Amino acid sequence: MLKTEGLNVAVVGVTGAVGTRMLEMLESSPLPVKSLFPLASARSAGKKVVFGGKEWTIEEAKPESFEKIDIALFSAGGSVSKQLAPEAAKRGAIVVDNTSAFRMDKDVPLVVPEVNEKALFQHHGIIANPNCSTIQMVAALEPIRQAYGLNRIIVSTYQAVSGAGAKAIAELENQSRDVLNGKEAQPAIMPVKGDKRHFQMAFNAIPQIDLFQPNDYTFEEMKMINETKKIMGDQEIKVSATCVRVPVSISHGESVYIEINKSDVPASDLKSLLADAPGVILEDDPEHQVYPMPANAAGKKEVFVGRIRRDPDVANGFHMWIVSDNLLKGAAWNSVQIAESLLKLGLVKV
Amino acid sequence: MLKTEGLNVAVVGVTGAVGTRMLEMLESSPLPVKSLFPLASARSAGKKVVFGGKEWTIEEAKPESFEKIDIALFSAGGSVSKQLAPEAAKRGAIVVDNTSAFRMDKDVPLVVPEVNEKALFQHHGIIANPNCSTIQMVAALEPIRQAYGLNRIIVSTYQAVSGAGAKAIAELENQSRDVLNGKEAQPAIMPVKGDKRHFQMAFNAIPQIDLFQPNDYTFEEMKMINETKKIMGDQEIKVSATCVRVPVSISHGESVYIEINKSDVPASDLKSLLADAPGVILEDDPEHQVYPMPANAAGKKEVFVGRIRRDPDVANGFHMWIVSDNLLKGAAWNSVQIAESLLKLGLVKV
Repeated sequence: MLKTEGLNVAVVGVTGAVGTRMLEMLESSPLPVKSLFPLASARSAGKKVVFGGKEWTIEEAKPESFEKIDIALFSAGGSVSKQLAPEAAKRGAIVVDNTSAFRMDKDVPLVVPEVNEKALFQHHGIIANPNCSTIQMVAALEPIRQAYGLNRIIVSTYQAVSGAGAKAIAELENQSRDVLNGKEAQPAIMPVKGDKRHFQMAFNAIPQIDLFQPNDYTFEEMKMINETKKIMGDQEIKVSATCVRVPVSISHGESVYIEINKSDVPASDLKSLLADAPGVILEDDPEHQVYPMPANAAGKKEVFVGRIRRDPDVANGFHMWIVSDNLLKGAAWNSVQIAESLLKLGLVKV
Repeated sequence: MLKTEGLNVAVVGVTGAVGTRMLEMLESSPLPVKSLFPLASARSAGKKVVFGGKEWTIEEAKPESFEKIDIALFSAGGSVSKQLAPEAAKRGAIVVDNTSAFRMDKDVPLVVPEVNEKALFQHHGIIANPNCSTIQMVAALEPIRQAYGLNRIIVSTYQAVSGAGAKAIAELENQSRDVLNGKEAQPAIMPVKGDKRHFQMAFNAIPQIDLFQPNDYTFEEMKMINETKKIMGDQEIKVSATCVRVPVSISHGESVYIEINKSDVPASDLKSLLADAPGVILEDDPEHQVYPMPANAAGKKEVFVGRIRRDPDVANGFHMWIVSDNLLKGAAWNSVQIAESLLKLGLVKV
């Protein structure tokens, strides 16, 4: 697996829910990795990870950690990225950042390879990986936009708790056990670690992901709105979102309504289009109860789309249901895929 | 609690998730009940229920069971209603039917008292209680429709398993225990008891409630579409729905988008309207993380509304989040409320 010629790859936040999956995605990638630099906070320094059949020692992430790095995958939270991503870029590493720290910066490409791989040519050392719920939606909708144009998106999400980190998965499991045993759930993290109040997540649905903004949308909803327009390169698309956390460990579901710029397109044409779309798997056979579900998508790299049907009253309106593993296509896999694209496009050299 | 003068009330399906709650709602209602007639299938005949401080013996529901009945509340499935509701009506009982058997019949009023109580005057012995997810939505939207007109509704539901009956609650709990213990979930009922395939519900989201129709919408989605138009008495409102089952025991959540017939109405006006609406409780204070949640609504009769905000791009478009106990306002309470209305309007006499 490890190459004698190849890339020095750093993974920042290597012990987290996304970081551990970045290693898995790197292992199964054709990307030639010469050396791995597993980085984390001082608390995890000294621990080991296994990669390419070899043990590697985790070091504390510092500016100097990036001296010999070709590609640095960051997933250790926005404040770590804000501090260290520029230091890494300054030292010649190309940063693929999985936090929201730089996503809306004019000079930072926000990339889903199936949608806007070419934006990578504009990078200045930092590339942003979009928000998980945005990635799966734009991957499914871009083929439709290319074919018919897209003037409107309304999305309601059913988001897994792993979007709030490994500790949130444990919290859901512990709360579920407590409730099943007739005890009170002990909320500590959800809905938002940094917010004032915490609520039971087990057997509940919470209409708050990330902090509320002055316009009464949450930051998660604004990410979906703003990132979709940036990735699709079209500020005119009307986008709105309602983001809800549900008691699912892994994989986000999305109920999506779109209006295309053409009337009288049958739903079957959209299905054909998505059946051939890169990174997308069509699961749409109502007669045989075939549709995407989080429990089936977990652990898979693709975006699953089904329940595609025309709006009963609007000739250019369609509804669909999109599911993907939020830790893979929504985070770790999209980041590694960006690294693969960088190599393919000659933007990083072995 | 029991009256010497009063009504003979039958509850058909008295042992079910809704039936047991019909008794609770009758107990706390000012409706003067003289005698209770608890009815069920032959399997439950001979068992006892407690009501008004007294034990009552369950009898098998038959045509003759309704000889002396004033009001019969039905919640034993569509086939039982189809067979016995006309028999009950023939014998002079007024039927309030909680199944989908008669909802779309021209001669059957479909009633949410806060919305269209007056439709009760048109009854011919059978009154239909709407679908649970429809009731909470129209209760929240009718005050807005009255004030501004309503031209469009798009809803995505987050529905509790209790909509599929008491056995579905047990199935969710058993599956949750199994998954937490590293075992395979054993699906037997969900998503739809009468359909061919069953899927894990614990820690999953299933985009199918009731059977698929030829147009690729589910029957649950078509109920929301057709019943909303009938209850609001307006076939011109554009309605579409995506119905999803989530691992919640009680209370449905709904992410609802509406377009009103007036531009430039601030969201705060909609909030004021709903704060004063009958049967509705406004829970909308993002700054203090106040919004409706299934875990809080379970066991309460009201419809809870929050997250009200204007669409970023559409001047007459608004998003909101509506939650209510699907077994109470969605079923048992709305049925008992209809019985109260019948008495109040003089349509049934003590």
